[in-house]
Amino acid sequence: MLRTHQLGKLNADHIGQTVTVTGWVARRRDHGGVAFLDLRDASGVAQIVVHDESQFDQLRNEYVLQVTAEVKARPEGSENRNIASGDVELFASEVVVLNTAAPLPFQIDEHVEVGEEVRLAHRYLDLRRPEPARIMRLRSEVNRVARNLLADQDYIEVETPTLTRSTPEGARDFLVPARLDPGSWYALPQSPQLFKQLLQVGGIERYYQIARCYRDEDFRADRQPEFTQLDIEASFVEQDDVIELAEQLLVSIWKLIGVDLPAPFPRITYHEAMDKYGTDKPDLRFGLELTEMTEYFKDTPFRVFQNEYVGAVVMPGGASQPRRQLDAWQEWAKQRGAHGLAYVLYKEDGELTGPVTRNISDAEREGLAAKVGANPGDAIFFAAGKPNESRALLGAARVEIAHRIGLIKPNSEVPAEEQDWSFVWVVDAPMFEPAEKAVAEGDVAVGDGAWTAVHHAFTSPKPEYMDTFDTNPGEALAYAYDIVANGNEIGGGSIRIHNQEVQKRVFNIMGISNEDAQEKFGFLLDAFQYGAPPHGGIAFGWDRIVALLAGTDSIREVIAFPKTGNGHDPLTDAPAPITEEQRAETGVDYVPEEDEEEATANA
Amino acid sequence: MLRTHQLGKLNADHIGQTVTVTGWVARRRDHGGVAFLDLRDASGVAQIVVHDESQFDQLRNEYVLQVTAEVKARPEGSENRNIASGDVELFASEVVVLNTAAPLPFQIDEHVEVGEEVRLAHRYLDLRRPEPARIMRLRSEVNRVARNLLADQDYIEVETPTLTRSTPEGARDFLVPARLDPGSWYALPQSPQLFKQLLQVGGIERYYQIARCYRDEDFRADRQPEFTQLDIEASFVEQDDVIELAEQLLVSIWKLIGVDLPAPFPRITYHEAMDKYGTDKPDLRFGLELTEMTEYFKDTPFRVFQNEYVGAVVMPGGASQPRRQLDAWQEWAKQRGAHGLAYVLYKEDGELTGPVTRNISDAEREGLAAKVGANPGDAIFFAAGKPNESRALLGAARVEIAHRIGLIKPNSEVPAEEQDWSFVWVVDAPMFEPAEKAVAEGDVAVGDGAWTAVHHAFTSPKPEYMDTFDTNPGEALAYAYDIVANGNEIGGGSIRIHNQEVQKRVFNIMGISNEDAQEKFGFLLDAFQYGAPPHGGIAFGWDRIVALLAGTDSIREVIAFPKTGNGHDPLTDAPAPITEEQRAETGVDYVPEEDEEEATANA
Repeated sequence: MLRTHQLGKLNADHIGQTVTVTGWVARRRDHGGVAFLDLRDASGVAQIVVHDESQFDQLRNEYVLQVTAEVKARPEGSENRNIASGDVELFASEVVVLNTAAPLPFQIDEHVEVGEEVRLAHRYLDLRRPEPARIMRLRSEVNRVARNLLADQDYIEVETPTLTRSTPEGARDFLVPARLDPGSWYALPQSPQLFKQLLQVGGIERYYQIARCYRDEDFRADRQPEFTQLDIEASFVEQDDVIELAEQLLVSIWKLIGVDLPAPFPRITYHEAMDKYGTDKPDLRFGLELTEMTEYFKDTPFRVFQNEYVGAVVMPGGASQPRRQLDAWQEWAKQRGAHGLAYVLYKEDGELTGPVTRNISDAEREGLAAKVGANPGDAIFFAAGKPNESRALLGAARVEIAHRIGLIKPNSEVPAEEQDWSFVWVVDAPMFEPAEKAVAEGDVAVGDGAWTAVHHAFTSPKPEYMDTFDTNPGEALAYAYDIVANGNEIGGGSIRIHNQEVQKRVFNIMGISNEDAQEKFGFLLDAFQYGAPPHGGIAFGWDRIVALLAGTDSIREVIAFPKTGNGHDPLTDAPAPITEEQRAETGVDYVPEEDEEEATANA
Repeated sequence: MLRTHQLGKLNADHIGQTVTVTGWVARRRDHGGVAFLDLRDASGVAQIVVHDESQFDQLRNEYVLQVTAEVKARPEGSENRNIASGDVELFASEVVVLNTAAPLPFQIDEHVEVGEEVRLAHRYLDLRRPEPARIMRLRSEVNRVARNLLADQDYIEVETPTLTRSTPEGARDFLVPARLDPGSWYALPQSPQLFKQLLQVGGIERYYQIARCYRDEDFRADRQPEFTQLDIEASFVEQDDVIELAEQLLVSIWKLIGVDLPAPFPRITYHEAMDKYGTDKPDLRFGLELTEMTEYFKDTPFRVFQNEYVGAVVMPGGASQPRRQLDAWQEWAKQRGAHGLAYVLYKEDGELTGPVTRNISDAEREGLAAKVGANPGDAIFFAAGKPNESRALLGAARVEIAHRIGLIKPNSEVPAEEQDWSFVWVVDAPMFEPAEKAVAEGDVAVGDGAWTAVHHAFTSPKPEYMDTFDTNPGEALAYAYDIVANGNEIGGGSIRIHNQEVQKRVFNIMGISNEDAQEKFGFLLDAFQYGAPPHGGIAFGWDRIVALLAGTDSIREVIAFPKTGNGHDPLTDAPAPITEEQRAETGVDYVPEEDEEEATANA
């Protein structure tokens, strides 16, 4: 080693010792003949005192030094309580410059003021800052704790292939041309789903993997083309077993930031979540439940409320919002594709005002505050129309209200360990949704059917829908469970289909013909012939979980070398053009001989 | 859970208890009114006794059952010492068929007689066999032990990108078209080399990752297009630090099979390895060193030995080989591209026979046995010609001799824990080799220069060659170290270049112009400007290491879902054709507008 000690571990115990340390110059101050350097390594910072002018004159920020020095107590009163080595300073006897540094594109401290693109283009400098370095360490610890917990319960880590076959899982596959088989392509996996199920057929019984997954999606904020999930699957388990294991895992890793999550976590059904919170990812750090008003307004004279669904959410204290803010709410709603956000203001003096009040009946006006649970001073927001869209609007309004009135602590102000944490299981989701709805939401509908899987095609119906899920797909509930933390879906799983016939029936509903199914994942259907055990599992969105633990809103902060919008890497400038020779080798332009003849004939 | 107990964990302590177990029917015997089933789960096997004929009539091999039963002691004398549960049997009160099984393509036991292609096409059945299941568990344990050892020494696991930029590392890249940036491609990484170096520039100091890597190579036996390495890099380290850490790792994981490796391992220089063993991957389980005879034969009348290099290796007891075997050696040599393998037989009576003896001088004949260390009864094999090729032939002959005379225990006969284990570090390899040699050996020469890197382009020269490596590339030694176990290179690493200028000089020698270098990995050169610390590391071939631990010759046996020749997966049948729509989406046929015009103009 080029050093004997780490800087952050030096303390009063080392006084009188001669040590050799290495690190980066974080700061230098020249006090006429004596220079003070803050030298930084991964463990922390220590102060170096250099008396030899010829040495310190040449030193610049981020130079890499090897310093041999005597550890001395700092003069009384000059100790630095902010750093672990603050009781001591190092009197240098020898300074070796291991490497120099050109002037930096940005300073390395906690207050970076350059844009993300510049930071990521120089991520190797960004990672020298305390916060990104802390996050990399945290992520490594999260991995370690999760793996050891699973290993202690006899889970086996199995590495599944990433050059595999294109399978329909709800998004586009990244494809890799196979040079040795021109015209053929591998696909990068969207998840190890099929392989982990095959491992269960293979008797592995308890599998896990921190797996790299790939989705070629159109740009959405905070998505990455490659991402990581903790993937788990087990045989002979039921929903409660998977949920219990998942809770143990989450409790263990939240302990890493000093938070004791109370387990078991509450469970709510998908339909209850939609009714009360307008979303299947409810943030339960606060109340503000939606009130369904369809029945209440069933005889209303107000045309807007003569609708399939009417709902309301209360904004405490919202009655005193100035006109400008109420207009901003309308804008906010329009950005979400709504016409606007109807409202009633319940004034402190008990008066109801706002445009809605003039349109509804006296009785409706009279009972309104009690019905929605509003108090004087509150605002009541309404949505009316198709149930899903109206609920989604009210659900989003609910979260926006929570932000505005301070029910959610911003990550920029409150560290993760002091956040409120609210975990909830969302269970009993519908098995299928109309394919056009999935497509409208940006997913790829698998198959040509009118229905597509809400979870995925391998999710079992709950036992009570086993006979009817294909005759009445809109009613069938899936044996699925999603875990939601503070409004973020951080994991989801299900009990799987293990029966070939059931799997075929699900494919049929989704418009995947027997032929197509055999062509696309005949290997799974084949496997199900030979004694597939009942099995189920879960997958956690690892990037999001680490982001929550790290107290950052962006998953890019928890990825060592993330990509920005459109999958671009500002550091390596990938993706990039390839050479003609590389292209020729990929075989993508290969034309089979018959086709070539045809092409010639047609020319 | 669908069970209360695991089958392999039942023993006499459970006698009298009612248990519920699940598993696969491994074997059934019908004894007139009573059926005995061996039921298997991941933990082992137990015997089930079924009295109800209506139940056992329908049961077939590999059916999946849930059995509720009372645990009873086996009748005295009928205990089975071969299984952990052999003291007990389970009297079934209820048998639920969880799934049926069609007739199997092969039986699930230790003696599979079908070919590998069939096994892999039904890998989910193959994995139910004891040996593949054992290997999957072993691999998981190896991962766990390695990761925890590294974490205990403050190494941080960092996940590096796999959709990245094509960089020259000695093999072809797999390429991935970027749909959102048509005409641009990602590359799958051949290793995390550049990223782990960037992490050092980023002050991470101690990095590791069990990383998936990709090489698009032509088929060579026992290569996989995707493979796994344990990848390690650290700052402020020297060669001895990396070697010591690597030894701790290998000692720890070999303990998993009950083998105590004596550390430190011996070290030998590359040149010594070539001289004595004819290879840089010497198998030191046995001696049989080569003897260089160039000087000895410098005045020889034998034309064949009037050559740049003459060497010999002794085959103990080889003098009694019949003519047929001696002819077979000639064939063996010809298959390796040699003209043949000259030999002298040193008969038990002291006589030297064989064609060579008639051509050499009396003095040469007289001193020969003593010079090569042959005893009466031995054969002496010779090679003469270019040093590298002749040494390689003798080195291969040396290993072949060891196999034939039983100095190497076959994996098929002796389990890994009873093998001899010989580990050696090969150090001080040359920095460069002629590019044409690398190409002849199937590597991709990086750059257009006459020289290419033996290790890779980021390996530092040893300090004593720092000034001269570009004026005298053939002499320069690299700061590199490879670890060889029983003749297998299982890992290799180096101290890296951390200086931008040195890196550019190395690129120049390899014929990578400054422009090219900036275009291909400008980001690394840029990073080196800003205070890159001295650093080094190592990468272990994880598949090969697990194969050695598992006692198998093929890395396919230690991969859950391996590919066969030409990168084909017999299970999913990947790679496969894609649809026209998928192809259109990849953007590979995208033509930039200007080009389109040109194309039209030329048509």
